[in-house]
Amino acid sequence: MNSNRKRVSCGLDVGFTEDLEESIMRSNQNGYDFICTNIVKEGSAPFQGAKLNEKIGGITDTSYLFNSHEWASLVVGKVSYFTDLTSPVDKRRLMASEALMQELQFAAFLSLPAVIVEVKDENCSAVARIIYSFLHQGHHNLHIWVKIPLQSYDGQQDTWQWWNKFRRMCNSHGRIGLALEITSDLPPQLERWSGEPIRVVFLSTSVFLTNKKGFPVLSRPHQQIVSKLLRLNCQAVISGDKINEDSVVVYHQYLNHLCQAANTEGQYERFARGYEDYLQAPLQPLMDNLESSTYEIFEKDPIKYSMYQEAVYRCLLDIIPDEQRDEVTGVIMVLGAGRGPLVRMSLRGAEKANRKVKLYAVEKNRNAAVLLEHLRATEWKKHDVTVVSADMRTWDAPELADIIVSELLGSFGDNELSPECLDGATRFLKPNAVCIPQSYTSYVSPISSQKLYNEVKGVVNSERNKPPESSFETPYVVRIHNYHELADPIALFTFNHPNWNNASENPKTEFYGQVTPKQWQAKFSKECAVEMNGGNHNADVVKEEIDGSECDSLPFSVNDKGLLPDNHHNSRYKRLSFNVPFDTILHGFAGYFRCALYQDVEISIEPRTHSPGMFSWFPIFFPVKDPIDITGGSNLKVDFWRCTNEEKVWYEWCVDSPRPSSIHNPNGRSYTIGL
Amino acid sequence: MNSNRKRVSCGLDVGFTEDLEESIMRSNQNGYDFICTNIVKEGSAPFQGAKLNEKIGGITDTSYLFNSHEWASLVVGKVSYFTDLTSPVDKRRLMASEALMQELQFAAFLSLPAVIVEVKDENCSAVARIIYSFLHQGHHNLHIWVKIPLQSYDGQQDTWQWWNKFRRMCNSHGRIGLALEITSDLPPQLERWSGEPIRVVFLSTSVFLTNKKGFPVLSRPHQQIVSKLLRLNCQAVISGDKINEDSVVVYHQYLNHLCQAANTEGQYERFARGYEDYLQAPLQPLMDNLESSTYEIFEKDPIKYSMYQEAVYRCLLDIIPDEQRDEVTGVIMVLGAGRGPLVRMSLRGAEKANRKVKLYAVEKNRNAAVLLEHLRATEWKKHDVTVVSADMRTWDAPELADIIVSELLGSFGDNELSPECLDGATRFLKPNAVCIPQSYTSYVSPISSQKLYNEVKGVVNSERNKPPESSFETPYVVRIHNYHELADPIALFTFNHPNWNNASENPKTEFYGQVTPKQWQAKFSKECAVEMNGGNHNADVVKEEIDGSECDSLPFSVNDKGLLPDNHHNSRYKRLSFNVPFDTILHGFAGYFRCALYQDVEISIEPRTHSPGMFSWFPIFFPVKDPIDITGGSNLKVDFWRCTNEEKVWYEWCVDSPRPSSIHNPNGRSYTIGL
Repeated sequence: MNSNRKRVSCGLDVGFTEDLEESIMRSNQNGYDFICTNIVKEGSAPFQGAKLNEKIGGITDTSYLFNSHEWASLVVGKVSYFTDLTSPVDKRRLMASEALMQELQFAAFLSLPAVIVEVKDENCSAVARIIYSFLHQGHHNLHIWVKIPLQSYDGQQDTWQWWNKFRRMCNSHGRIGLALEITSDLPPQLERWSGEPIRVVFLSTSVFLTNKKGFPVLSRPHQQIVSKLLRLNCQAVISGDKINEDSVVVYHQYLNHLCQAANTEGQYERFARGYEDYLQAPLQPLMDNLESSTYEIFEKDPIKYSMYQEAVYRCLLDIIPDEQRDEVTGVIMVLGAGRGPLVRMSLRGAEKANRKVKLYAVEKNRNAAVLLEHLRATEWKKHDVTVVSADMRTWDAPELADIIVSELLGSFGDNELSPECLDGATRFLKPNAVCIPQSYTSYVSPISSQKLYNEVKGVVNSERNKPPESSFETPYVVRIHNYHELADPIALFTFNHPNWNNASENPKTEFYGQVTPKQWQAKFSKECAVEMNGGNHNADVVKEEIDGSECDSLPFSVNDKGLLPDNHHNSRYKRLSFNVPFDTILHGFAGYFRCALYQDVEISIEPRTHSPGMFSWFPIFFPVKDPIDITGGSNLKVDFWRCTNEEKVWYEWCVDSPRPSSIHNPNGRSYTIGL
Repeated sequence: MNSNRKRVSCGLDVGFTEDLEESIMRSNQNGYDFICTNIVKEGSAPFQGAKLNEKIGGITDTSYLFNSHEWASLVVGKVSYFTDLTSPVDKRRLMASEALMQELQFAAFLSLPAVIVEVKDENCSAVARIIYSFLHQGHHNLHIWVKIPLQSYDGQQDTWQWWNKFRRMCNSHGRIGLALEITSDLPPQLERWSGEPIRVVFLSTSVFLTNKKGFPVLSRPHQQIVSKLLRLNCQAVISGDKINEDSVVVYHQYLNHLCQAANTEGQYERFARGYEDYLQAPLQPLMDNLESSTYEIFEKDPIKYSMYQEAVYRCLLDIIPDEQRDEVTGVIMVLGAGRGPLVRMSLRGAEKANRKVKLYAVEKNRNAAVLLEHLRATEWKKHDVTVVSADMRTWDAPELADIIVSELLGSFGDNELSPECLDGATRFLKPNAVCIPQSYTSYVSPISSQKLYNEVKGVVNSERNKPPESSFETPYVVRIHNYHELADPIALFTFNHPNWNNASENPKTEFYGQVTPKQWQAKFSKECAVEMNGGNHNADVVKEEIDGSECDSLPFSVNDKGLLPDNHHNSRYKRLSFNVPFDTILHGFAGYFRCALYQDVEISIEPRTHSPGMFSWFPIFFPVKDPIDITGGSNLKVDFWRCTNEEKVWYEWCVDSPRPSSIHNPNGRSYTIGL
């Protein structure tokens, strides 16, 4: 029952069977991987009024047939549906509860991988209670797959709410998954299911149409939802009248066909394979030295470096006019040169532009600098390259740069402290120098993902002095996969470079002749305002932001060094507002970035503008501790802060409405990025 | 600043003062206990752009004046109100944030008991963030009192929502309290505030009216809310224009007068004093032997025992007709006789009824039995009393009883396992025997109480193998005080005695001649149905319940002992539905009981029918792990289960709507009552 990209793992729902071995054999012969079968005969209720050590018929007669491995791979159980679980007659209720519990315990005893439990209306607290009690008994591994139809039988109810109630009552238990029944009629808002932990899709043969050749096919809307769900690595089960026909194999074949046809896996998806919903702590390249193998992986990105080459090329053409190309030598400093890809791309860009350059490769990781020195003496021996083993924030540069090139971006843009690093390099820039990248902006969208929520809940934090909720106060780099984006991403924080705001500390102030800090400031403000507009920011606020004179009228002394940290100008705050049109549950926020390397040469991992095939960055995920129910039509407001002090940088976040969350990561108690 | 029942602890809001010592002295001379004063001069913002070690004026100049104890008892600080906390100009925002943080830290440095932080609109995430960060810094004891007006300045906003947001963002931190400002106009639904952690009530002199004699008085609605709030042990602060007049003492005098006039403290309140909102684990008298002092406390109840006497009296008159009073001797068995009060009351009842009785005093606590034997030989030597040191469930009674008398009720009625104990005594009952009590019913109402929620959060569970949420999965006996009842209590579970359901095990079945178990069953069903009707139970359900034939058609074998525990007939399930008319937050459920000792001789702790002056039982509180926001007009549905097995009894509960909670206490993992 392992998922397989080439073919769909598919089972047959054989209902109750007297001869389990025969049923499994026939299903296998017809191309199915496993069967779904009732643990006891519906209506016979053999567990009722009997004890386990008595003879009780059905699957329970065949328990000697298989070894544990066979049970675990070939059979998914189905428990009976008991209407008496809420009976006001206590004895009826107790007998039904006990019978359900015994069926569950029997399934666990046989090492079945999972049992199907049906929910047929919103009134599911009684069955949820028994499931939740069962999950707290002993240490078995049985999974519960709650079977919910896409559409209620009367078409009037929102079956997602049934699931949401069941899940909440069981406290989002990690061993509860979803068995989604594809109904003939499809309600709207099917995308909502894509954030749920769907383990299996139930398809009745009656949902299929028959094509001209007499084969079963799905309608186009059904094809879309089924192939979308199967991409979430779930399995399928065929049920219904025709499953005993010999031709039942065609249903599985059709699903395989559907899956292969829908397979549009590109370079990014191939790279990401196996990383789906796998949480990674964000890199801290400033504090930790990367290993060579980490550099190696990222150097394979087919897109990123060609964009850098293009950016350097275009920039050199702009800053060194054609008529000066013989006299002027551009000074390029690659900051954070790593194993040299940006040096290589800069040299190629210069070659293409036919401009002379002098290049400094600055790298704080001494180990990587050894490699760079080797490359200088070999690959780059005909070029003017100087390798510097130093931290750009403290390096005493021998001359000023025309261009600085860096790749210090994290998944959230600024989260690997690119702003702080590049500010540290402002000291050795010519007044009209260009930073590549010139600016970057983080983007945020609200998402629903039970899968990610459970992953975060499962993170064990071994560090002392951290609060129990610290795993929910940490962002994660993750290839988000089993999720539902509740609204389009909105721009959050923008950083522009060079940032002369911090230039008062510059010991080389004589170079400011041409451009004043104030001029730079005005430019930045305007760019920032445009971004904020894009982010639906309040118009008055934008106006105030653009109004440069605001900055002059601040009632603070010029020298406020004692009060605010050096990097205070990289602090940010913003409230984002999303309109969520449907009932859903919020588990957190996906984060992305968009970056202008030079003018319109951009790289982006923001979904709508994602650079095709660029795989160097997965999104970032900011969890919310207590999932928040959202009623359709609500305005979801969230506050993000980027906080800074002399030693570190961190984010805090909280949901403001429709239901306020607690403030996440106060003082950076759970997560900080070291300077 | 200790609260005092006789007089209101009251402060003066002196605003910013240049001479702190003088201000305190004058306030004290005018009869005030403490002052409220701004930490820095409004508008002067001395912390902005300066460091703490510089001279910064105001209160900060006088920090050498007092010792820590004086600061802690005489001065409550007020921090400045910063509109810039959400400024889009990062530097403004940072300076304001830093200034607020420094004021807070300075207050903590001085050992002030609390500071006042004003919230003036719903947009409070920025100030909440700084407060929450501050509370996570270091180990100081400074409390934050969030000042919220009862009515917003435009009268249009629900200021309770401001508070609710602030509290939620700070994760209901225990050091955050409420400073409630009484406004001239009073909005509706003031009761909602009574569940909040109000520490101080702010009263401006402008809110007072002037009576004929020229003294300040409050309007009647203001009197009601203020005296209600002051009963929550909070303090008062007088603010406004007239606080510098010498006559300012009259405001404090008026509040004292108001408080004393409203003091309707009775026997119950006197007994309960000091126990307000103090959580106690429910007694487990079945598992643990009570100490003599515990018996002693409960024996002082002025009401309970007189009701027992009346019940025995009335019962004896009914079961022994006047014409038989010389021939017949009634057999009374007191089960759980303790130190003898029920024996005493039974003898008095018999005396009053002029009936002959033979009395067995059965007590499982051997220590108490020693006392009983002493009483038999002394106080009761003229009566026919037999002391039996045994557990009623296993006692081999020498004869059958006409009346059994017991007091095994917990705050929730059945929660000290009265049903299971009395079932164990069914064996030695005559067929027409009477149980005193005859029946009891638990009642439940939803409540909002930040205070109780924080108390539960603070419970440290030292037992291993219990989940971290176990304190929220345990009911507590508590004199609920700082709470708001969101709807009237509804009947939950009813138990009737004798319960012949369990009588098939009775070795003395020859006594069934007169009344069949089926007849008893029919009677119970009807009584139960009436209770359920009272509880707004679905009408169809009630019909099914009454229909006695239901029980005959159950598809179970008669002998289901192997499947269901002996005490399965004491299992219960019920869904309760409450209409909540206003926006609020649910923290849990208050539980009570009502008990028919004999016919209409009742005892009750259900508020609407509480037996006056009876103090033996405080209510019980069932917490909800995650407080649930409720929108006005919602239908609040909650499920309660009473679960039983061979060794123990426990409750499980969950909220079904408007927002499902997780199921509390699955399998009794956090709390059970041992049999």
